[in-house]
Amino acid sequence: MIPIIRPLETGDRQGWQALYDDYHRFYHRPDLPQSFFDQCFQRLMSGDAGDYKALVAEVDGTLVGVAHYLFHPHMWYPEGTCYLQDLFTAAEARGKGVGRALIEGVYAAADAAGVPRVYWLTQEFNYAGRMLYDRVGEHTPFIRYNRPF
Amino acid sequence: MIPIIRPLETGDRQGWQALYDDYHRFYHRPDLPQSFFDQCFQRLMSGDAGDYKALVAEVDGTLVGVAHYLFHPHMWYPEGTCYLQDLFTAAEARGKGVGRALIEGVYAAADAAGVPRVYWLTQEFNYAGRMLYDRVGEHTPFIRYNRPF
Amino acid sequence: MIPIIRPLETGDRQGWQALYDDYHRFYHRPDLPQSFFDQCFQRLMSGDAGDYKALVAEVDGTLVGVAHYLFHPHMWYPEGTCYLQDLFTAAEARGKGVGRALIEGVYAAADAAGVPRVYWLTQEFNYAGRMLYDRVGEHTPFIRYNRPF
Amino acid sequence: MIPIIRPLETGDRQGWQALYDDYHRFYHRPDLPQSFFDQCFQRLMSGDAGDYKALVAEVDGTLVGVAHYLFHPHMWYPEGTCYLQDLFTAAEARGKGVGRALIEGVYAAADAAGVPRVYWLTQEFNYAGRMLYDRVGEHTPFIRYNRPF
Repeated sequence: MIPIIRPLETGDRQGWQALYDDYHRFYHRPDLPQSFFDQCFQRLMSGDAGDYKALVAEVDGTLVGVAHYLFHPHMWYPEGTCYLQDLFTAAEARGKGVGRALIEGVYAAADAAGVPRVYWLTQEFNYAGRMLYDRVGEHTPFIRYNRPF
Repeated sequence: MIPIIRPLETGDRQGWQALYDDYHRFYHRPDLPQSFFDQCFQRLMSGDAGDYKALVAEVDGTLVGVAHYLFHPHMWYPEGTCYLQDLFTAAEARGKGVGRALIEGVYAAADAAGVPRVYWLTQEFNYAGRMLYDRVGEHTPFIRYNRPF
Repeated sequence: MIPIIRPLETGDRQGWQALYDDYHRFYHRPDLPQSFFDQCFQRLMSGDAGDYKALVAEVDGTLVGVAHYLFHPHMWYPEGTCYLQDLFTAAEARGKGVGRALIEGVYAAADAAGVPRVYWLTQEFNYAGRMLYDRVGEHTPFIRYNRPF
Repeated sequence: MIPIIRPLETGDRQGWQALYDDYHRFYHRPDLPQSFFDQCFQRLMSGDAGDYKALVAEVDGTLVGVAHYLFHPHMWYPEGTCYLQDLFTAAEARGKGVGRALIEGVYAAADAAGVPRVYWLTQEFNYAGRMLYDRVGEHTPFIRYNRPF
């Protein structure tokens, strides 16, 4: 099984929402309104250079994974940086290289944009994810703090 | 000693660079060229809504701290989020509430912009910083991975 | 496959060494001398209340896992505590509940000895292990420091 | 201020309890009964090779710090290892080298006993402690799990 990695397209509307909804359920955010998904899809397809873009992984005509990434300015690097915010593989397609292919797709998109630095955040206890991330990325000592909300 | 927290101004050019240079030395980036600081200052003063802004802490007419923050889009939240990237207090002004005042200044700026979510990253072993961050922020389980570079 | 959990016996000499040797290879300690294993096995079989004991997991007459644990004094608790130092499952028997059965065997042995507190240490990046440990144990915020050696 | 590091003595009974009580309050264990301290002191003074020993730090005749350590068997090392369990400095004596002197005292005691390996556990967020531990010890990737209790 070799997934095809390609930019999100208009025809992916339904498959994309199924994946992104599962992703939010993983983060304990079920029951997001339809308007949330409508707005997200519109943003991803807008072509706005300052907003998120999406890559999808397709196997036999079915979407099995999605990645959302953003180019944003960085004080240290004039070219900016690339933040891979959302990465998700369908439960039934795990362990088959989908996540790796999506990350490598983001690397390629970042190179093409002249913004080769890519980073992402993950929960310390995301063991399955980290098994992959330790192979394709570099664990840094940086941890995240939030304003209490 | 109560620091005044205010936006960066043209007249801060010299004091700002002294602080920001020290900050980069802390991260093992000495010897940055003058053009780097010129460009950063220009960006911070540009008023570009999509680029970083700066707050400074002033005591008796001297700059003793600086914070650089960026509003950037977030897939989950339509209003976006605020990334506090650089935070630095002059060595001789530490332990006096400068860092806290700067973070609270960023919180206020974020509220004023209608983007109340604020986050930052710090090294796991930044003990002095974390003593403060645990009081004004919330430690999350998120850790950072980088593309190997 | 339900492993039998039982104390180490004299007849386990060979099977035990195969497992314990693999365990040390995992920790980058290959080429331990035969005398090391002789001494360890002797200690485990000695019945010395102040030294380590072993439980093994057996499936169809073959050893597939081993656990070494020690009761040692604790300043806070008069009854002492139980340190599960070595836990290992044969590569071909992973994901089948052997590790869990061994840990539960140690819990039972600790209860029988009147020393119900059990703890162990693991590397932060032992993702496969932690998937199990999060289910049968409790992650504490304690981290280990060593004297430089 | 150079603290004297020496083994616990009978005459330290009162000063030792004041320190050890504060230590337990730090770990949210106030109101320990007098019998707990009686028993601990007796154990520390017993000379039992298999139980804890104590070093104290004295300045101008006053106890300002205490360390409890245990030699226990280790499966990997025939000579065993030394566990520094409790380390505490009086609040008013912090930042003056008391903790460092106690740790170095334990190192010396371990060397004298022919058990040079020493380790300890600390909470990830014990920032003040870790500032010291990073200088005199080595942070390992090992984290602690407990049996749920």
